[in-house]
Amino acid sequence: MTVIGLDPGSAITGFGILEEHADHSLEVIDYGVLRTGPELSTAERLQSIYEQLNNLLVLHHPDSGAVENLFFQRNVSTAITVGQARGVLLLALSQAGIPVAEYNPMEIKQAVAGYGKADKKQVQQMVKMLLGLKEIPRPDDAADALAVAICHIHSRKFNQID
Amino acid sequence: MTVIGLDPGSAITGFGILEEHADHSLEVIDYGVLRTGPELSTAERLQSIYEQLNNLLVLHHPDSGAVENLFFQRNVSTAITVGQARGVLLLALSQAGIPVAEYNPMEIKQAVAGYGKADKKQVQQMVKMLLGLKEIPRPDDAADALAVAICHIHSRKFNQID
Repeated sequence: MTVIGLDPGSAITGFGILEEHADHSLEVIDYGVLRTGPELSTAERLQSIYEQLNNLLVLHHPDSGAVENLFFQRNVSTAITVGQARGVLLLALSQAGIPVAEYNPMEIKQAVAGYGKADKKQVQQMVKMLLGLKEIPRPDDAADALAVAICHIHSRKFNQID
Repeated sequence: MTVIGLDPGSAITGFGILEEHADHSLEVIDYGVLRTGPELSTAERLQSIYEQLNNLLVLHHPDSGAVENLFFQRNVSTAITVGQARGVLLLALSQAGIPVAEYNPMEIKQAVAGYGKADKKQVQQMVKMLLGLKEIPRPDDAADALAVAICHIHSRKFNQID
């Protein structure tokens, strides 16, 4: 089963794609960030994010997707910008027929680090360990997206969805 | 020249399509709301909004679009939800090659009612009058979207874009 985790931001969006094997081991398929040029208009940036995600979906055919829930964001204008990016990500997943789950930051920390108030560094260390990586994935947005994907896989197990 | 104005909301999105004739008179082509069923998931709702807007674009071929800027929204979770809808609207316009302008609520009120602090009722009365309608367009979201379209046409004149 292949899972894509997404961490939408106002400037860049992290993605992490994991394969869960039959023995429940996790394999990193791909991770990185969707970037858009600052010279683009808002609408063009959204189109670029949408196209970059579609390329990843065509390439890796994930079975399931997960997006970080950002309702805890404090700043309203950032919330709108992130919401716009989130909207086109959810659209692309829906159009590809990929079911999407949403997780709060606390659920992600709980699932990855075993503690809902774990700090960013602890979560990143756990991502590195759980995925058997030599280094913490860079940039942070990519590590965060991998954490979302891990959370989704763990939650699916706990919830007995599959 | 045909202009589409959009007023994205968390539940429904208003749209208003106006034709500006060579003598600068305005003709109402279409207005209404994009609704999505509460039984749909967030991703499905966004897909529905996107498809409904695309249908309108195919039907009316607007030359230019305008969307209300919502950075003044107070509530952060509403801001994310509205941002998501706004994201897919901007994406659809961008994919159709339609340039999009964004206007703050105050700019819209100023352009339509001549007063940036005009109340909702005053703006709606002016929309009715400027478009030669017998009644104020219903629902409010549709009237608001027509106000966005009027604002865009007025601003374009003032800015000598065309």
